[in-house]
Amino acid sequence: MIYIQLIGYVAGALNTFCFLPQVIKIWHTKQTRDLSLPMYIANTTGTILWCLYGVLVAQPPIWIANGVALFLIGSILILKIKHG
Amino acid sequence: MIYIQLIGYVAGALNTFCFLPQVIKIWHTKQTRDLSLPMYIANTTGTILWCLYGVLVAQPPIWIANGVALFLIGSILILKIKHG
Repeated sequence: MIYIQLIGYVAGALNTFCFLPQVIKIWHTKQTRDLSLPMYIANTTGTILWCLYGVLVAQPPIWIANGVALFLIGSILILKIKHG
Repeated sequence: MIYIQLIGYVAGALNTFCFLPQVIKIWHTKQTRDLSLPMYIANTTGTILWCLYGVLVAQPPIWIANGVALFLIGSILILKIKHG
Protein backbone atom coordinates (compact mmCIF):
# COMPACT_ATOMS: atom_id res chain seq x y z
CA MET A 1 0.00 0.00 0.00
CA ILE A 2 2.92 2.37 0.66
CA TYR A 3 3.74 2.65 -3.06
CA ILE A 4 0.11 3.57 -3.80
CA GLN A 5 0.35 6.46 -1.31
CA LEU A 6 3.65 7.47 -2.91
CA ILE A 7 1.94 7.63 -6.33
CA GLY A 8 -0.72 9.90 -4.78
CA TYR A 9 1.89 12.21 -3.23
CA VAL A 10 3.91 12.47 -6.48
CA ALA A 11 0.67 13.12 -8.45
CA GLY A 12 -0.36 15.83 -5.96
CA ALA A 13 3.08 17.47 -6.04
CA LEU A 14 3.17 17.48 -9.87
CA ASN A 15 -0.35 18.93 -10.21
CA THR A 16 0.41 21.57 -7.55
CA PHE A 17 3.82 22.77 -8.75
CA CYS A 18 3.22 22.31 -12.52
CA PHE A 19 2.01 25.94 -12.66
CA LEU A 20 5.39 27.31 -11.49
CA PRO A 21 7.09 27.06 -14.96
CA GLN A 22 4.15 29.03 -16.44
CA VAL A 23 4.57 31.79 -13.82
CA ILE A 24 8.33 31.95 -14.53
CA LYS A 25 7.75 32.00 -18.31
CA ILE A 26 5.32 34.95 -18.06
CA TRP A 27 7.68 36.69 -15.62
CA HIS A 28 10.38 36.59 -18.32
CA THR A 29 8.34 37.21 -21.50
CA LYS A 30 5.45 39.40 -20.16
CA GLN A 31 3.36 37.62 -22.83
CA THR A 32 0.03 35.93 -21.98
CA ARG A 33 -1.96 36.36 -25.23
CA ASP A 34 -2.23 32.60 -25.93
CA LEU A 35 -3.45 31.77 -22.39
CA SER A 36 -7.22 31.31 -21.92
CA LEU A 37 -8.70 33.80 -19.42
CA PRO A 38 -11.81 31.61 -18.76
CA MET A 39 -9.48 28.69 -17.98
CA TYR A 40 -7.67 30.63 -15.26
CA ILE A 41 -10.90 32.16 -13.85
CA ALA A 42 -12.42 28.64 -13.57
CA ASN A 43 -9.19 27.09 -12.22
CA THR A 44 -8.74 29.85 -9.60
CA THR A 45 -12.40 29.54 -8.52
CA GLY A 46 -12.17 25.72 -8.35
CA THR A 47 -8.96 25.89 -6.30
CA ILE A 48 -10.50 28.42 -3.85
CA LEU A 49 -13.43 25.97 -3.42
CA TRP A 50 -10.98 23.06 -2.84
CA CYS A 51 -9.27 25.12 -0.09
CA LEU A 52 -12.67 25.85 1.46
CA TYR A 53 -13.61 22.15 1.21
CA GLY A 54 -10.30 21.14 2.85
CA VAL A 55 -10.94 23.53 5.75
CA LEU A 56 -14.59 22.39 6.16
CA VAL A 57 -13.66 18.68 6.24
CA ALA A 58 -10.60 19.49 8.43
CA GLN A 59 -8.11 17.87 6.01
CA PRO A 60 -4.86 19.92 6.05
CA PRO A 61 -3.35 18.00 3.06
CA ILE A 62 -6.24 19.26 0.90
CA TRP A 63 -6.14 22.91 1.90
CA ILE A 64 -2.33 23.13 2.11
CA ALA A 65 -1.77 21.62 -1.37
CA ASN A 66 -4.58 23.73 -2.86
CA GLY A 67 -3.34 26.81 -1.02
CA VAL A 68 0.04 26.48 -2.74
CA ALA A 69 -1.68 25.82 -6.10
CA LEU A 70 -3.97 28.83 -5.54
CA PHE A 71 -0.94 31.10 -5.06
CA LEU A 72 0.52 29.95 -8.41
CA ILE A 73 -2.74 29.78 -10.42
CA GLY A 74 -3.91 33.12 -8.97
CA SER A 75 -0.55 34.66 -9.97
CA ILE A 76 -1.07 33.48 -13.57
CA LEU A 77 -4.63 34.91 -13.55
CA ILE A 78 -3.37 38.30 -12.29
CA LEU A 79 -0.53 38.32 -14.88
CA LYS A 80 -3.03 37.37 -17.64
CA ILE A 81 -5.33 40.27 -16.65
CA LYS A 82 -2.31 42.62 -16.48
CA HIS A 83 -0.66 41.63 -19.78
CA GLY A 84 -3.83 40.75 -21.75
CA MET B 1 -22.69 18.04 5.46
CA ILE B 2 -24.48 17.92 2.09
CA TYR B 3 -23.37 21.49 1.21
CA ILE B 4 -19.74 20.56 1.94
CA GLN B 5 -19.99 17.65 -0.54
CA LEU B 6 -21.57 20.05 -3.05
CA ILE B 7 -18.58 22.41 -2.68
CA GLY B 8 -16.29 19.44 -3.39
CA TYR B 9 -18.24 18.41 -6.50
CA VAL B 10 -18.32 21.99 -7.88
CA ALA B 11 -14.57 22.37 -7.16
CA GLY B 12 -13.84 19.06 -8.92
CA ALA B 13 -15.97 19.96 -11.93
CA LEU B 14 -14.34 23.40 -12.27
CA ASN B 15 -10.78 22.02 -12.00
CA THR B 16 -11.60 19.24 -14.50
CA PHE B 17 -13.39 21.27 -17.18
CA CYS B 18 -11.38 24.52 -16.78
CA PHE B 19 -8.99 23.24 -19.48
CA LEU B 20 -11.75 23.10 -22.13
CA PRO B 21 -11.66 26.88 -22.93
CA GLN B 22 -7.88 26.58 -23.49
CA VAL B 23 -8.36 23.68 -25.93
CA ILE B 24 -11.05 25.68 -27.82
CA LYS B 25 -8.85 28.82 -27.87
CA ILE B 26 -5.90 26.92 -29.39
CA TRP B 27 -8.25 25.16 -31.83
CA HIS B 28 -9.28 28.61 -33.14
CA THR B 29 -5.97 30.52 -33.01
CA LYS B 30 -3.41 27.66 -33.58
CA GLN B 31 -1.17 29.73 -31.26
CA THR B 32 0.52 28.19 -28.20
CA ARG B 33 3.76 30.23 -27.93
CA ASP B 34 2.90 31.73 -24.51
CA LEU B 35 1.99 28.34 -22.97
CA SER B 36 4.66 26.65 -20.83
CA LEU B 37 5.68 23.22 -22.20
CA PRO B 38 7.09 22.04 -18.81
CA MET B 39 3.74 22.97 -17.18
CA TYR B 40 1.79 20.71 -19.52
CA ILE B 41 4.33 17.87 -19.33
CA ALA B 42 4.14 17.97 -15.49
CA ASN B 43 0.35 18.37 -15.46
CA THR B 44 -0.18 15.49 -17.92
CA THR B 45 2.19 13.24 -15.91
CA GLY B 46 0.51 14.18 -12.61
CA THR B 47 -2.96 13.51 -14.04
CA ILE B 48 -1.87 10.09 -15.42
CA LEU B 49 -0.59 9.26 -11.90
CA TRP B 50 -3.92 10.43 -10.36
CA CYS B 51 -5.78 8.09 -12.75
CA LEU B 52 -3.46 5.22 -11.75
CA TYR B 53 -3.95 6.08 -8.06
CA GLY B 54 -7.74 6.12 -8.52
CA VAL B 55 -7.64 2.67 -10.14
CA LEU B 56 -5.30 1.24 -7.45
CA VAL B 57 -7.47 2.50 -4.55
CA ALA B 58 -10.63 1.48 -6.49
CA GLN B 59 -12.16 4.98 -6.36
CA PRO B 60 -14.05 5.61 -9.63
CA PRO B 61 -14.66 9.34 -8.81
CA ILE B 62 -10.87 9.86 -8.82
CA TRP B 63 -10.02 8.04 -12.05
CA ILE B 64 -13.14 9.21 -13.93
CA ALA B 65 -12.58 12.92 -13.09
CA ASN B 66 -8.85 12.65 -13.82
CA GLY B 67 -9.53 10.66 -17.00
CA VAL B 68 -11.64 13.55 -18.35
CA ALA B 69 -8.98 16.06 -17.23
CA LEU B 70 -6.26 13.93 -18.86
CA PHE B 71 -8.09 14.03 -22.21
CA LEU B 72 -8.20 17.86 -22.07
CA ILE B 73 -4.71 18.48 -20.61
CA GLY B 74 -3.16 15.88 -22.95
CA SER B 75 -4.87 17.59 -25.91
CA ILE B 76 -3.28 20.93 -24.89
CA LEU B 77 0.14 19.21 -24.57
CA ILE B 78 -0.19 17.66 -28.07
CA LEU B 79 -1.33 21.03 -29.54
CA LYS B 80 1.59 22.80 -27.78
CA ILE B 81 4.09 20.31 -29.25
CA LYS B 82 2.44 20.66 -32.68
CA HIS B 83 2.23 24.48 -32.80
CA GLY B 84 5.36 25.28 -30.71
